[in-house]
Amino acid sequence: MLKAVYFDGTSARTRSDYPDPGAGGESTVSVTLAGICGTDLEMLDGYMSYRGVPGHEFVGVVERSEAHGTALVGKRVAGEINVGCGRCGRCQSGMERHCPARTVLGIQGRDGAFAERLSLPARNLHYVPDSVSDEQAVFIEPLAAAFEISEQVQAAAGSRAAVVGDGRLAQLICQVLRMSHGDVTCFGRHAEKLKMLERFGISTRLNVGPAEERSEEEEEEERRGNGSNNQGGGTADGDRQAFDIVVDASGSVSGFADAMYLTRPRGTLVLKSTTASGSGADLTPAVVHEVTLVGSRCGVFGPAIEALATGTVQVDHMMDSTFPLDGFGAAVRRSREGDALKVMLKP
Amino acid sequence: MLKAVYFDGTSARTRSDYPDPGAGGESTVSVTLAGICGTDLEMLDGYMSYRGVPGHEFVGVVERSEAHGTALVGKRVAGEINVGCGRCGRCQSGMERHCPARTVLGIQGRDGAFAERLSLPARNLHYVPDSVSDEQAVFIEPLAAAFEISEQVQAAAGSRAAVVGDGRLAQLICQVLRMSHGDVTCFGRHAEKLKMLERFGISTRLNVGPAEERSEEEEEEERRGNGSNNQGGGTADGDRQAFDIVVDASGSVSGFADAMYLTRPRGTLVLKSTTASGSGADLTPAVVHEVTLVGSRCGVFGPAIEALATGTVQVDHMMDSTFPLDGFGAAVRRSREGDALKVMLKP
Repeated sequence: MLKAVYFDGTSARTRSDYPDPGAGGESTVSVTLAGICGTDLEMLDGYMSYRGVPGHEFVGVVERSEAHGTALVGKRVAGEINVGCGRCGRCQSGMERHCPARTVLGIQGRDGAFAERLSLPARNLHYVPDSVSDEQAVFIEPLAAAFEISEQVQAAAGSRAAVVGDGRLAQLICQVLRMSHGDVTCFGRHAEKLKMLERFGISTRLNVGPAEERSEEEEEEERRGNGSNNQGGGTADGDRQAFDIVVDASGSVSGFADAMYLTRPRGTLVLKSTTASGSGADLTPAVVHEVTLVGSRCGVFGPAIEALATGTVQVDHMMDSTFPLDGFGAAVRRSREGDALKVMLKP
Repeated sequence: MLKAVYFDGTSARTRSDYPDPGAGGESTVSVTLAGICGTDLEMLDGYMSYRGVPGHEFVGVVERSEAHGTALVGKRVAGEINVGCGRCGRCQSGMERHCPARTVLGIQGRDGAFAERLSLPARNLHYVPDSVSDEQAVFIEPLAAAFEISEQVQAAAGSRAAVVGDGRLAQLICQVLRMSHGDVTCFGRHAEKLKMLERFGISTRLNVGPAEERSEEEEEEERRGNGSNNQGGGTADGDRQAFDIVVDASGSVSGFADAMYLTRPRGTLVLKSTTASGSGADLTPAVVHEVTLVGSRCGVFGPAIEALATGTVQVDHMMDSTFPLDGFGAAVRRSREGDALKVMLKP
């Protein structure tokens, strides 16, 4: 028996009598600290139809391991969240994250990290170096998702990047893009969150959602693929179509429209938001402007761990409050507030 | 004065007193034959908020030319439809089709081909070889749009391609993809149209719209990124996620969902449909499966003219009825019928 947050598809509550994760040929990890992310909040709203223990960002200590003798036991680890079947063509060609039979920690068919203990295969676990604190280690998983963008999209010399959204994941993406792009602009709705980015040399635009600034006439112009600026030039007035690479990390359909507004013809728009709301995107501008959209999900942990260990990416300023498992409801409420950063749970 | 179809934003009628196109430093072309395409039908439904003479697929004879002395006069030509300002950064870097100040023949700010005469810059005109008939030459513009896909997406050895839609443009895309892919499957709703593709070695699936076959539960599984097939393997059961490259040429939001259903994780989905309806697409599966979406519009004429001249792409079986300009209403009605192919107007 252990203490865990259980979500029954409608509401989440903390139980003290939750069954221990079956050993089942996997490693058992005692969770030290776990983070709440946007996907968790979406899931509580119905995304993925998940039932079980949520949570997929964590650091912990290995209690028992099925592999490497006892070498892993007692070690501090973070864990990759996708577990493939290990036998299919996708798993064997390095696409375990896309295995059709996969489970995903705290998201799909596998109890997650908002519990005293969790279970994962040893191959999913990564040592956390001493130079990375527990609080920092909770950021490994979302930071890996940010680095996935660099794996998928090559930065050309002099290219301009934009990020739509200023939340937890967007903040990490901005720092990662800044490593390869001289020019990164974040479009957000929270002055305090944007201010955090300035120390990293990232330009910011407050309260845009460029869509909100646009008149209906301009929206129509946008659909027609014709700029309101007829002066010509490589980019249109202001920020419209001014960016070579734009990342939508807003978590909203309007954020996608904003991102499309910012992307230059034949540019790249990286899709980093999954939403419970589902449909609503207008793809016609992508056709007219021949934009490439790149769906992007989880990433590998190596570059993320290294960036935290060397201080290349900084996260200490992104820590918010920490709650016990019994305070899950309050933690979620805090996490949904506009100024909230990384809220943590300490089992 | 000339005879032309004029669309006032609400309805289209044939006028005999339409003003001649201004010479304005461009070439004047006497239109021999023009084709009706899906975009024209969308525009009559409100797409692009266009007012003027529609029509952008044509073959004609040059009456007057501003360039090359009199060399162009009397020549049979087809014409690229985008006219950039010629001075801006995009025009000067080979992206005239994305010039923010561009006009587009019969689509945006420039009277089109459903008229006795039209005007285009000489640089937009291409000679039509004698081996290409007038009827075939009308297909140059849409065929160039089909070839644009080959410019944007590289075919890897052994890759499987699918096309959603069996209409005029989809038919051309199937033939073009077949040139570079050993395995092309067309998903359509019209048995007769699918039958036409079989002679080119293209597999067909009738009446799918795979979405229609799926239960609500499967739809949810799809959103979760988890196959209903848990056997593993490089592809899931049947056609689900079975294709490396999928082209949506359906012209509908449900067609986009079908195309997403067919695309393998990390595969490529080419967007070839613009719709008057606008929003409605669910992008979450693109994120979960890390699919790349490639917006694709017009293409260059060279490969299309060559394919018609050499018979590599065949179009004779796609010709439907021909109407005079006075019969525009009947031509549009015929063009909207499920079994209609390329309906032509002969000024």
